[in-house]
Amino acid sequence: MATGRAEAAFCLGQQCLSVPMAMFADNRRRLCERLRRNDKVLDGSYVLLQGGDSQNQYCSDKELIFRQESYFHWLFGVLEPGCFGAVEVATGKASLFVPKLPAEYAVWMGKIHPPEHFRDKYAIDDVYFTCDIAQVLADKKPSMLLTLRGVNTDSGSTCREAAFDGISEFNINNKLLHPEIMECRVIKSPMEIEVLRYTNRISSEAHKEVMKAIRPGMHEFELESLFQHYCYSNGGMRHVAYTCICASSNNAATLHYGHAGAPNDRLINDGEMCLFDMGGEYYCYTSDITCSFPANGKFTADQRMIYEAVLRSNRAVMAACRPGVSWPEMHRLSERVLLQDLRDGGLLQGDVDDMMKVYLGAVFMPHGLGHFMGCDVHDVGGFPEGTERIDEPGIRSLRTTRALEEGMVLTIEPGCYFIPALLEPALRNPEQARFINAEAIQRFQGTGGVRIEDDIAITADGCELLTCVPRTVEEIEALMAEGRREPQASK
Amino acid sequence: MATGRAEAAFCLGQQCLSVPMAMFADNRRRLCERLRRNDKVLDGSYVLLQGGDSQNQYCSDKELIFRQESYFHWLFGVLEPGCFGAVEVATGKASLFVPKLPAEYAVWMGKIHPPEHFRDKYAIDDVYFTCDIAQVLADKKPSMLLTLRGVNTDSGSTCREAAFDGISEFNINNKLLHPEIMECRVIKSPMEIEVLRYTNRISSEAHKEVMKAIRPGMHEFELESLFQHYCYSNGGMRHVAYTCICASSNNAATLHYGHAGAPNDRLINDGEMCLFDMGGEYYCYTSDITCSFPANGKFTADQRMIYEAVLRSNRAVMAACRPGVSWPEMHRLSERVLLQDLRDGGLLQGDVDDMMKVYLGAVFMPHGLGHFMGCDVHDVGGFPEGTERIDEPGIRSLRTTRALEEGMVLTIEPGCYFIPALLEPALRNPEQARFINAEAIQRFQGTGGVRIEDDIAITADGCELLTCVPRTVEEIEALMAEGRREPQASK
Ligand SMILES: [Mn+2]
Ligand SMILES: [Mn+2]
Repeated sequence: MATGRAEAAFCLGQQCLSVPMAMFADNRRRLCERLRRNDKVLDGSYVLLQGGDSQNQYCSDKELIFRQESYFHWLFGVLEPGCFGAVEVATGKASLFVPKLPAEYAVWMGKIHPPEHFRDKYAIDDVYFTCDIAQVLADKKPSMLLTLRGVNTDSGSTCREAAFDGISEFNINNKLLHPEIMECRVIKSPMEIEVLRYTNRISSEAHKEVMKAIRPGMHEFELESLFQHYCYSNGGMRHVAYTCICASSNNAATLHYGHAGAPNDRLINDGEMCLFDMGGEYYCYTSDITCSFPANGKFTADQRMIYEAVLRSNRAVMAACRPGVSWPEMHRLSERVLLQDLRDGGLLQGDVDDMMKVYLGAVFMPHGLGHFMGCDVHDVGGFPEGTERIDEPGIRSLRTTRALEEGMVLTIEPGCYFIPALLEPALRNPEQARFINAEAIQRFQGTGGVRIEDDIAITADGCELLTCVPRTVEEIEALMAEGRREPQASK
Repeated sequence: MATGRAEAAFCLGQQCLSVPMAMFADNRRRLCERLRRNDKVLDGSYVLLQGGDSQNQYCSDKELIFRQESYFHWLFGVLEPGCFGAVEVATGKASLFVPKLPAEYAVWMGKIHPPEHFRDKYAIDDVYFTCDIAQVLADKKPSMLLTLRGVNTDSGSTCREAAFDGISEFNINNKLLHPEIMECRVIKSPMEIEVLRYTNRISSEAHKEVMKAIRPGMHEFELESLFQHYCYSNGGMRHVAYTCICASSNNAATLHYGHAGAPNDRLINDGEMCLFDMGGEYYCYTSDITCSFPANGKFTADQRMIYEAVLRSNRAVMAACRPGVSWPEMHRLSERVLLQDLRDGGLLQGDVDDMMKVYLGAVFMPHGLGHFMGCDVHDVGGFPEGTERIDEPGIRSLRTTRALEEGMVLTIEPGCYFIPALLEPALRNPEQARFINAEAIQRFQGTGGVRIEDDIAITADGCELLTCVPRTVEEIEALMAEGRREPQASK
């Protein structure tokens, strides 16, 4: 403790990234700078956030593993449940409020740390007990408490606003904070990008382990388990950023496969393609990576054709990303390249511009090209006030329609799927059907699909690729062949 | 589908246990038989339960992996969220209500199955959509809908009662069902015990893998990760029954170590003891196993002395368990054997009966001897009406004070810990201090503790041990030596 707070960091041992608490101080600084430029924010204002609470499984006493709420994490980096945090807008000075634990906590849950412990652990200026929050805040005589209230544009849910007994005695404003803090989260600091490089590195390594270990005859969930094990045991990632999608064959045509109603329980057969969308999470920073590859390690000609079309689409976007570029234009670019290659591969016929006019891209790629990524895998800030969705097939699923800016982190994840619920209507619709080679498409029915998803950070003049997995057909086949030469690790 | 519903089963491939849906039909039959014997339950009554709903992480669109609510699972075995289920008390006939999914579900979440799919999958008599529940139930003209409302005696929480638009048109009784269904869950059927044998077998194997793989210099969480990976990839266990407790050295003195505030993040050193309390869960049936062993594979004399005291305590209880035996008496037996051995080991002095009078056992073992286990790891039914807690140190933590009955499944988990928050007051209390050899105890300060936890099923004339891990010092040392001879699997 005597070493001083400057070096405080989150660390899980030498093999894992050490994240300095200075990252959160920097986040607080950036937020306060923005707020001070907002003339509706009174001098003497404080930001007030409430962290997540511990939850049990239904009415049982099984406590679910706690994961901090993302806004609270972004501002304070605090791992424990039941906290509040306040930031003085004028100075960026942070106060943390932690639960006062009963004496029996020491027997059941661990050492009862004094407030100083949290002050040092998180490099926070002052730490108090939550039971004293009304008095502590009153003593600061804030002109205004800025609480967080706003809608998450991906879920449609409103975030939980901070509340404590006595809060009505304060001058509360719950409108000003949300757009400002959301905007801060959109632009990642260099330190945050370093963490996202790490989440990408570990998750990429885990994907490579999966590609080396997979064999026809395994169940999809065995690879989900291997991915999670690699990320946790090598990278300290106790959580995944989202439920693993381990889709073999036709399951790849279910975009969010892997949930409890479709739980990665299929037997993988020889000759099938796999689409594995999996990302680990470290200290509440996510990753989001999809690899598509043949279960047996060798692409067929048809599999290669689809795969390379999607890869060319991905790489065309990556080459074009730079500040100022419109994300919807990138989405259209990815569709255009995909359609072109599908035509060259004999699945489509006719003029690509004409295909674009009837939204043929959305038949094969019904989802958006990509999304912001950060403390949430679908990160906030996609639709600030004044921006709107584009109500056209496919592109309406885009989670943002903004122009790119330096410091944004996004996924690029074009895909090509054979989804009966979309192909059948397209084949019945003469406007679209005339472009489709129905006989060729028939060959692909039931084969699922391909997605290639990378995470990028927008730089001053382009973008940095954070993901590091093999991407060309040759690279993938070489890695999988390597895995087949190694002795299969006993499970 | 044409193969008929009789053989319907939950199955994750050849290596995993196939659980027949007949198990749930049998649970429904047992519940209805009890209810028919209750003369407050009117002829023409129906049981109505609401299953769990899918949940997102805070206000984000990240869906948490769904785990069914335990009562609903016990009665229907249904894996999907958003369902209701009804059972006709007179016949045991079951109706399931599933969400009507929107067309876009087919693209994002998977095939939209017709009701017949669920009828066959779960061997349910009739399946409807939840939107039709009011009408479907009205058509059955129930004299009474028995809904579930009651307090979980471990958490103090009240379970969520079924509710749907229009339910107020029915004659609702929310008092009768809870004690009856709780009592049914206390007595496990032979099929349920078969599932618990399986959860114990897989979790035991995983514990053995951990003991073979552990080396000083690893972090605790690496072993948590390995345990989970073994259980999932070999046993189809996507969930653990509770957060893994991977406690090295002094962390073992924190009984519920492993939560977010104490997240298995310590570096394990040579010479330390480990206490690993970990259990996998299969199809919502749990296991709960603790192994204690030296990180380097060889017990010191002091470690062996404590370990063997706890083991003798565990085995004394196991030998005594049979129908009719009082669980509090078993708790006292475990304390008595432990105190005796600690005295023989030189940690205590004086007469054991006198120690018992001043509750010295609770200084070393502050928790209860064990608890019911089933669909919840701390399973329901510990305190039916008319039973009470015993308000004395240690034993007041017992999760049941009942007498044993055939078909009950419980844990036997005596422990011996060196917890400053308990030892210091004991040393200051002359009534207890006179039994304690303070100098000898000093040797153990900071070394944590030992717990040995097995799961048993009460049989007609004794009990069946479900857990299958090495328990004697010799068995543990032999297994760990074996692990040290094998090449360390690359992570
Ligand atoms: Mn994504
Ligand atoms: Mn237990």
